[in-house]
Amino acid sequence: MAAVSPAEAIERVRDGFVSYARGEWQMPPKVYLPSPPGGDFRAMPVRGDGLAVLKWITSFPGNPRQGLPTVTGVVLVSDADNGEPVAMLDARAVTALRTGAAAAVATQELGREDGSAVGLIGCGLHGMWVGRCMSDAEFGPGVCFDPDPEAAGEAAAEFGWEVGDLPEALACDVVCTVTPGHEPVIAAGSLRPGQHLNVLGADGPGKAEAEVEAIRHIAAEGRIFCDEWQQASHGGELTTAVAQGIIGPDDVTDLGAVCAGLAAGRKSPDEITLFDSTGLAIQDLAIVLGALEAIEAGVVKPPTVDL
Amino acid sequence: MAAVSPAEAIERVRDGFVSYARGEWQMPPKVYLPSPPGGDFRAMPVRGDGLAVLKWITSFPGNPRQGLPTVTGVVLVSDADNGEPVAMLDARAVTALRTGAAAAVATQELGREDGSAVGLIGCGLHGMWVGRCMSDAEFGPGVCFDPDPEAAGEAAAEFGWEVGDLPEALACDVVCTVTPGHEPVIAAGSLRPGQHLNVLGADGPGKAEAEVEAIRHIAAEGRIFCDEWQQASHGGELTTAVAQGIIGPDDVTDLGAVCAGLAAGRKSPDEITLFDSTGLAIQDLAIVLGALEAIEAGVVKPPTVDL
Repeated sequence: MAAVSPAEAIERVRDGFVSYARGEWQMPPKVYLPSPPGGDFRAMPVRGDGLAVLKWITSFPGNPRQGLPTVTGVVLVSDADNGEPVAMLDARAVTALRTGAAAAVATQELGREDGSAVGLIGCGLHGMWVGRCMSDAEFGPGVCFDPDPEAAGEAAAEFGWEVGDLPEALACDVVCTVTPGHEPVIAAGSLRPGQHLNVLGADGPGKAEAEVEAIRHIAAEGRIFCDEWQQASHGGELTTAVAQGIIGPDDVTDLGAVCAGLAAGRKSPDEITLFDSTGLAIQDLAIVLGALEAIEAGVVKPPTVDL
Repeated sequence: MAAVSPAEAIERVRDGFVSYARGEWQMPPKVYLPSPPGGDFRAMPVRGDGLAVLKWITSFPGNPRQGLPTVTGVVLVSDADNGEPVAMLDARAVTALRTGAAAAVATQELGREDGSAVGLIGCGLHGMWVGRCMSDAEFGPGVCFDPDPEAAGEAAAEFGWEVGDLPEALACDVVCTVTPGHEPVIAAGSLRPGQHLNVLGADGPGKAEAEVEAIRHIAAEGRIFCDEWQQASHGGELTTAVAQGIIGPDDVTDLGAVCAGLAAGRKSPDEITLFDSTGLAIQDLAIVLGALEAIEAGVVKPPTVDL
C-alpha cells in the first residue's frame, strides 16, 4: 500500500489501540450479514479523530476456485462532525495492512526481548503483510511455511528468510499463524517456554488455529491476550475454550490495555504469550488516518489507493 | 430519480415487504454510530434476490444551517453469491423515494376505499417524494402544509393540490406527516373516524409526530401498523407509548404481513389506522433492484443515478 508504510501502519495501529482503550474512539460491534452458502458480509463502524468510518467487507472462502478474491469490500470515510463523505478506500488493502501491523504491535508489547526468530505459517495475502510488518519492525529472520511451497518461497525471498516445514516454523520465538482456521496448526506439544504466538487467521465460530489443549496450557502456564474480548470470545480462536469454561473474561487481556499502560504484558521471559487477533474497525481507522495524511501531502493521488 | 419511477417504486417496495414477511429476504437490525453533538450514522444491511446491500447514511439535523444536507450517504450493492461489488447509489435519492413509496403502499393497504384527500404535513425533500408517490398512486388532491409557506406552495403547485394550514391538512382522509419529529403535530382531538395516518418523520427516541394520547386513542378505537416492530418500538413514534405500557407487540401489525396476506388490514370504514414508518433496508433493496434493472436496460447510465 503506497500510501502508508508498514512502519507507519504499526505506529498508527498502536495509537488506535490506545485511543480505544482510553475511550476516545467509539466502536459498535461489527454486524454479520450471512450469505449462504458462499460466505458473509460484515459491516464494521468506528468513530475517532474527527472521522466516522464504515468498512463493508466480505469473506467468501470458495471464491479463489472461481478466480475471485476471498475478501472484497470498501472503507467509507466521512466527516464525523457533519457526515459529509471524505474518501473511499479499498478494504482489502486496508485489512491486510492493519492485520500485519497488529501482529507487529502485539509482538513488540508481548514478545520476549531476546528472541526474534519468526515462524510465519500461511503465506497468502494476509501472511505476506504480516511478514512485511514483522520484518519492518526488525523481527526475524524467520521460517516461512505454507502448504503451497511456491507461496512460502516467495515470502522467504521477499523477507530474506528461509522456507521450512511446519515444525520448524512452530519452533521459532515468535509464531504467526495466518491460515483459514479450518484445522488447528498449533498443538499443545509444540509450545516452547518464552514463545509468543500471534493467531491471526480464524475469523468465525468453528474456526481455530490452536488446539483447545494449547489454549488450556497457555491459560494455565502463560498469558492470553486479544484485540477485544466481546469479539474474540465469539469470533473463533477462543470460542471453544470459552464455551468449555476453560477461559473467561478474567483470563484474557485486551492488547489495547497493554499498549495504554492499563494492564501488564509479558511478566517473565519463560511465559508463553498468545495474541488472538479478530480484527477491529479501530485498526482500519488507524490506517485510514495514515492514508488521508498521505493524500493530503500529495504522496498518493486519489481516487486510487492500492496495495 | 430518473432510474425508478414512483409507480415502479411503489410496486417494488410492496414486493420487498412481502418477500421479507415470507422470510425470503434477510435483514439484520440497523446499527447506529452516534456522532455527538451533530448527529449519527446508520449502517443498514439487507440481503435478497441475489444481492447484498448496505446503506451507510447520516442524520445531522443542524446541517442545513451550514448549507449542508441533513442526510448523506451511499448504498453499496454486491453480488450475494460471491461478494463482488455491483453498484453504488446515492443514499439520499434511494431513501427519499422508498419512504414515499412506503407511504403509498401503506395507504393502498390500509386507507378507506372512498376517501383519498391527502394532508401532507412537511414539504421538505422527503415530503415532496411522499407527495409524488401518493399523487402517482392516485391519492389526492390534497392540502400541503409546511411552516415555510414557500415549501408548501411549491409542493401544491407540483401536485396540483392546495396550500392549507395545519388543521386543514389534519382534517383530510389520509394524513402524511413528514416532519423532524421534534414536537407532535397530531393530537388526539384532531383524529377523525375512518382516517388513515402515515407517520413518516420521527426516526429516533425522543422524537414523535403524534401525541401519546393520539396513539392511545388509535390503539383503543382503531389499528396501529408499523414497518417492523423491533425497530418501531425503539425508533421514535411508538417508543413512549411502548414505554408507558399503552401498546405492546400484540397491538401493532407489520405492514409486510398485511401485504403478504398474513394479517388483516383495515377492518371497517370507520376505523382509524396509523402506519409508523421507521424505514427499512428492505425498502432500499427494493429500489436498488429497480435501479439496476434500469441501468441494465440502458434507461440510465452509471455511474450517475441521481434524484
